[in-house]
Amino acid sequence: MEKQKLTVGVDIGGTNTVFGFIKDNGENLFSGSIPTNPNEGADKFIIRVAREIKTRIKDYDEYNLVGIGIAAPSANHFHGTIETPSNLNWGTVNFVTMMKEYFEVPIVITNDSNAAALGEYEYGSGKGLKNFIVITLGTGLGSGIVINGNLLYSEDGLAGEFGHTIVNPGERQCNCGREGCLETYASANGIRRTVFEFLARYNAPSELRNIPFTQMTGEIISDMANKGDSIAIKAFNYTGEILGRALANLAASFVPEAIILFGGLVDSGELLLKPTRKYFEENLLSIHKGKVKLLKSSLGNGLAAVLGASSLITKTLNHSASIEFYASNAFEKK
Amino acid sequence: MEKQKLTVGVDIGGTNTVFGFIKDNGENLFSGSIPTNPNEGADKFIIRVAREIKTRIKDYDEYNLVGIGIAAPSANHFHGTIETPSNLNWGTVNFVTMMKEYFEVPIVITNDSNAAALGEYEYGSGKGLKNFIVITLGTGLGSGIVINGNLLYSEDGLAGEFGHTIVNPGERQCNCGREGCLETYASANGIRRTVFEFLARYNAPSELRNIPFTQMTGEIISDMANKGDSIAIKAFNYTGEILGRALANLAASFVPEAIILFGGLVDSGELLLKPTRKYFEENLLSIHKGKVKLLKSSLGNGLAAVLGASSLITKTLNHSASIEFYASNAFEKK
Repeated sequence: MEKQKLTVGVDIGGTNTVFGFIKDNGENLFSGSIPTNPNEGADKFIIRVAREIKTRIKDYDEYNLVGIGIAAPSANHFHGTIETPSNLNWGTVNFVTMMKEYFEVPIVITNDSNAAALGEYEYGSGKGLKNFIVITLGTGLGSGIVINGNLLYSEDGLAGEFGHTIVNPGERQCNCGREGCLETYASANGIRRTVFEFLARYNAPSELRNIPFTQMTGEIISDMANKGDSIAIKAFNYTGEILGRALANLAASFVPEAIILFGGLVDSGELLLKPTRKYFEENLLSIHKGKVKLLKSSLGNGLAAVLGASSLITKTLNHSASIEFYASNAFEKK
Repeated sequence: MEKQKLTVGVDIGGTNTVFGFIKDNGENLFSGSIPTNPNEGADKFIIRVAREIKTRIKDYDEYNLVGIGIAAPSANHFHGTIETPSNLNWGTVNFVTMMKEYFEVPIVITNDSNAAALGEYEYGSGKGLKNFIVITLGTGLGSGIVINGNLLYSEDGLAGEFGHTIVNPGERQCNCGREGCLETYASANGIRRTVFEFLARYNAPSELRNIPFTQMTGEIISDMANKGDSIAIKAFNYTGEILGRALANLAASFVPEAIILFGGLVDSGELLLKPTRKYFEENLLSIHKGKVKLLKSSLGNGLAAVLGASSLITKTLNHSASIEFYASNAFEKK
C-alpha cells in the first residue's frame, strides 16, 4: 500500500521555532518547539532544527515525507532567502539552499505572516474569505494580506511590513533602524516596553516592579493583568489603542472583509482584544463601520503559520490551488 | 461608412467637473469644465452637466457616442451610486440611474481615484506596471490601488480611502466626522488650513494675510511660494512632510512599484514634490528603499480620471481588458 503523505511545517519566530507534521488534509500529527536562539547564527540553528525534525519524524515512518514548508520573518518566497530579519541576527541567508543539505525533499519558504494568512485561508478564520489581513503579534508584528484570494507580494518577493508603519514619529527605536514603528508598541516586545514606560510614569504598586526587562514576557504581563495589576491592565489598553487605530487606518485603504489576529500576544484574549476592538471601531471610517470584522485566529496552538507553510507544499503537489497563491521555487532544483 | 466611436469621460470634483470626448484610442478630442456647485444638489448638477455635454457634442456628429464613464468621489462601481461624498452635499444618490434619464447609452461610474488609476494604467505613468497606487490631490485626497493589474475594490464596491488615514489623532476636523485625517493636511483644502495655521503661528509678513479663508486656493498659495513668500513655502514643506510620511507607511504594507501623484495640487510641481520625496525616502523601510518610485502623473490637463472613466466604457466594449478591471453594471440595464 502506498504510504500516506506527510509535510513538515516550520514557523521560525524571534523567540521559539515551532514545527508540525501535517497530513494531506491539514491534520496535525505532532508539533514540537525549540528555542530559536537568534544570536547564534543561521547555520547552527539549521543543525538543531534539522536534528530535531529527523529525530521526531522517526516515530511516523508509516508516512512518506514529501516536503518542508518554512515560515520566517523577512523571508523572500521567490529567492528562498531570509533577508536581514529585524528579530534574528542572521543577516541575509539562503535558507532554502542551506536546508537542502539536510533534506532530500522539496523545500519552500515564505514570510511568516503570509504563511499564517495561508493557514487561516485553508483551515481557519479566513476560510471562504477573498480579502482579509492576518496580523501576527509575536516578538514583532507581521502582516499577511490576501486580496482576491491571492497573497500580496511585492515585485521582488517581499511581503508587506505593516509592523513598520510609523505611528509615533521620533519615539521608540525600532530594530529596522527607524523610530516609532507600530511593532515597537503592538507586539510582545512592544507591550514590555510599554510596561517599563508605565512603571516609570505611574506610582501604582505592581509586582512587575520586581522583574527585570530581560525577563519580562507577554505571558507575565498577561498573568498580572488577570490578577488586577493596574500597570499591566493599562499596558494592554494602550497596546490595544495603538493597534486598533493602526488597523482602522489600514482598513481605510484596503477595506478587507476581516482582520484576523494571530500569535503569542493574542493568547492574552480579551485583555488585548477588547481595547483593540474599541479603538478599531471608533476610528473606522463611518462608511466602513460594521463591514470589517476583527477576528481572532481560530487555529489552536498557534499553528496557523505551520499549517500555512506546510500547505505551500501540499497544495502545489496536489495542483489544487491557484498558481498565484502557491507559485514557488520549491520544485525547480529537483 | 461606419461612424467612429466616441466616449464621454466625466470627472466630478469638489470644485469643478471636467469632461472630455475621447476616441477609441484614448485621444482627447475636446475637454470642458463646469463648476460643480456641490451645495445645489445632484439633480440640478445633472441637468447642467447633461446640457453642457449635449451642447458640446453636437460639434462632433461625425462620431457615434457609445457610452459615458463617470469618475466621482465615493462612487460605488457596483451599485452605480455616489455614497455620501465628503466634498459634495448630495447624500447618497443613484447617479447612474439619474444620468440615464438624459442619455440612451451605457453609463458606468467609478471612484475618482480609481478612474485616475485606470487612466494612468492605460495611457500614463502606470503603463506597464502591475502594482501601483495613484494618489489624487484635489479638494480632498483620493487613492486608487492597483494590485496584480486589478483595481482594488472592497466587497461592497467601495474603493480604499487612504485620505482618511488618521495621521494626527484629535487634530483637524475632517468632513468624514473624525479628526486628523490625512486629507485635512494633504489636499488643496488641507494646505489652505495649514497656511491659516502658519499665519497665526508666525509673524513673517505675507501677502497671504490679505486673503480670506474662502478665497484662498492652492493656486494662490503656489503663486506666492514661487514669489518667495515664507509662509507659503513653509506650508508646502509641511504638506510634503505629512504626505511623504503617510506614503512611506502605505508603501510599507503594499510595496508598490510606484506611487503616482495626480490632481490640482500637483500642478505646484517641485514646491510639493521635493519635500514629499524627501520625507517619503527618509521614512521608507530600508529594505524598500529605491524600490518604490514616486512619480507625477504624465497625463496633461488633469485628464487622468476623465480618460480612465472613459476607458471603462471603451475597454468593456472592446473586450480588451481583464474582467476584474472592467467588470461593470453599465450594460445590464440595456
